[in-house]
Amino acid sequence: MTRQRRSAPASAVIIAVGSELLTPHKVDTNSLYLTEQLDRMGVAVRRKLVTGDDAGEIGAAVRQALRPGELIFLTGGLGPTDDDRTRETVAGVLGLPLAEDPAIVADIRARFAARGLEMPDLNRRQALVPAGAGVLANRRGTAPGLWIDHEQAVVVLLPGPPRELRPMFEQQVAARLAGRSGVSGIHRRVLRIAGRAESAVEAVAYPIYSRWQTSEPVMETTVLSTLGQIELHLSTRAPSSEEAERRLDTATAELAAVLGRDLFSSDGSSLEAVVGALLLRHGLRVALAESCTGGLVTSRLTDVPGSSAYVRAAWVAYSNHAKVAGLGVDADLLEANGAVSEAVAEAMAQGARSRAGVDVGLGVTGVAGPGGGSADKPVGTVWVALAGPGSARRARRLQLPGERDRVKFQASQAALDMLRRALLRL
Amino acid sequence: MTRQRRSAPASAVIIAVGSELLTPHKVDTNSLYLTEQLDRMGVAVRRKLVTGDDAGEIGAAVRQALRPGELIFLTGGLGPTDDDRTRETVAGVLGLPLAEDPAIVADIRARFAARGLEMPDLNRRQALVPAGAGVLANRRGTAPGLWIDHEQAVVVLLPGPPRELRPMFEQQVAARLAGRSGVSGIHRRVLRIAGRAESAVEAVAYPIYSRWQTSEPVMETTVLSTLGQIELHLSTRAPSSEEAERRLDTATAELAAVLGRDLFSSDGSSLEAVVGALLLRHGLRVALAESCTGGLVTSRLTDVPGSSAYVRAAWVAYSNHAKVAGLGVDADLLEANGAVSEAVAEAMAQGARSRAGVDVGLGVTGVAGPGGGSADKPVGTVWVALAGPGSARRARRLQLPGERDRVKFQASQAALDMLRRALLRL
Repeated sequence: MTRQRRSAPASAVIIAVGSELLTPHKVDTNSLYLTEQLDRMGVAVRRKLVTGDDAGEIGAAVRQALRPGELIFLTGGLGPTDDDRTRETVAGVLGLPLAEDPAIVADIRARFAARGLEMPDLNRRQALVPAGAGVLANRRGTAPGLWIDHEQAVVVLLPGPPRELRPMFEQQVAARLAGRSGVSGIHRRVLRIAGRAESAVEAVAYPIYSRWQTSEPVMETTVLSTLGQIELHLSTRAPSSEEAERRLDTATAELAAVLGRDLFSSDGSSLEAVVGALLLRHGLRVALAESCTGGLVTSRLTDVPGSSAYVRAAWVAYSNHAKVAGLGVDADLLEANGAVSEAVAEAMAQGARSRAGVDVGLGVTGVAGPGGGSADKPVGTVWVALAGPGSARRARRLQLPGERDRVKFQASQAALDMLRRALLRL
Repeated sequence: MTRQRRSAPASAVIIAVGSELLTPHKVDTNSLYLTEQLDRMGVAVRRKLVTGDDAGEIGAAVRQALRPGELIFLTGGLGPTDDDRTRETVAGVLGLPLAEDPAIVADIRARFAARGLEMPDLNRRQALVPAGAGVLANRRGTAPGLWIDHEQAVVVLLPGPPRELRPMFEQQVAARLAGRSGVSGIHRRVLRIAGRAESAVEAVAYPIYSRWQTSEPVMETTVLSTLGQIELHLSTRAPSSEEAERRLDTATAELAAVLGRDLFSSDGSSLEAVVGALLLRHGLRVALAESCTGGLVTSRLTDVPGSSAYVRAAWVAYSNHAKVAGLGVDADLLEANGAVSEAVAEAMAQGARSRAGVDVGLGVTGVAGPGGGSADKPVGTVWVALAGPGSARRARRLQLPGERDRVKFQASQAALDMLRRALLRL
């Protein structure tokens, strides 16, 4: 019954350019990102395409997408080399002459200079701008983006590398789009869950979220199973931002009540960031002893900015000698139990803790495969152990499915989750 | 001068139908599968599209793809419900009347009966066949596929579920395609390069590969810049497999001659796998001392199956204490030079080598950011040092761009590449 300003929702076409995206193992992830961003603004993507680095194909895709009101995004093909054809082709299709922009040349030259290099002449191509186009500065690469108003449509050219495309969209394109009619907002939240299978999440979550599909405003829920964690994606399009955020808060609280400590994040944080924040809050420092994960747990923990405040040291003990000499694991204990055992995992955790002189030690040992398995310790057998904080001691045996890299990741996830749960008990 | 049977190579367009494929987290995997299958038959996919369950969009996509000789694949939208529109839309675009095929109705009825169910009337839609179309039986679902010869093009409709689509392609579509002219095999090779910027690769590679575009058989080349390495993708479509492989061998040799040791892989191997193979070949073992990379170098090395044969131990020394106590770095040296210095990187490499009792030690220390930078050692400053094999000693200062995770990765790449080059000298 509320009255709202209504306008036809805007629609978009995304054209990903790159011959490598037409090979059997490459996925165009930029279109997923752009879809998510456009969704939030109420812009429906009506078509996605992938074309090779071919002027004819790129041109046809743009011509076929052009219609009044359309937002057309092209990603990729803005590099300096001969097979980068997006800029020239789009200018040709729209009948716009290209001219070199001296400010862009200066920018690119400065980027090279900062690394002690001279700008190759090839890179001048990246400074060509179609007449009347807006330049979208690229703070992370040499290829600027372009915004072209054409009749009632808009054509936006973005660089292919996601780390260049994403900030350009968020800092420059989003603001330009926000002024257009038909652009409103979808609000989303991502809940992350560890230590519970997809079906076990579904069992408690479905009775709750199924009600939301018929309530007002509608809340859509998607359950996604990714390696080592389950995600619940909530989205709603309420009349106002405040109402949408309130609705998402209530929904998150309802799910949190049934998921308990398995829910580790409802603000998009990664597990390593959540663990880091808990360590920081309690003023605790950690040391690690890794065998089958080969440094992955430590690498994940140190992906978090500021982690040097709580990560002190780690040992990757990829041989029995390294476990004995580096971590002080008793050679007889190792001999008696084998490297993949509860006793050795505990001794590793304890060794890391005492040698680094920190509050918490975390140990991981297992069989990542493909070799090294046996009847009683097949590939995927992993022991995780925790020493500290204080007198706390925990150990857990896992049997993980999949190939080497998947076993490594799931083991790292289990180790970080064990640490998280111990910190929650403080 | 050789005479060959020439026919225009076949090309294909893949249209995935389904509104769910236009949401932020759904990937159209059918097109990856089809691309792989078509690649093997020498059919180049020139465009991939995703459209929603919308007759207007599906129709436009088909009309825009139609041209003589084209193979057009549509996946999805063959179900019995109201939002399944592929069959009717394609028939409409091609001007073909639809008629119910009693044999298909009987088939679907039998599938339901086998599960003790009666066929809902809705499913009769799945038995509608455009005049003149070939029916592709579906052994795993109710939606049959369709093969439509239209002028000189072919339009193939396949069910969306991969477990229905894949056997249908392999058992029925592949055989029908094999008879068409222009269907042979595409052969590919990926060359990986480290320690050289994209434009520097282009400068030496372009004069070579530009010639291939006009030679016979044509060799296509794509230059891809990914984090810490450059890739050259070569593909060719020679009359025979032997000729294609010979052509790729010659092309690879030509590029290898100008790229020298910067070319580290031409068989798809990762840098860590190449380093691992070299260590194995020379019977050498390695130990690592990582600071800013936080275990990433070791984690990458241990991603390679069999790496326990040459990775012995690693120390992640994320504090001065860990560098002194764990690796035996001299406290005065640390004080005098700072943790991010040539002297400390060398002492770390030497410490890892001697404490692990191995042939080679690799040390990395730097400022990953966002904090910790200074005027003379800004964020991105990294020292990499190598001790061994034998009396070999190397150290290198890097100034890496980007955020924390990118600095970490590029530093790990530089460390692995330094080790690779040292091993190549043996």
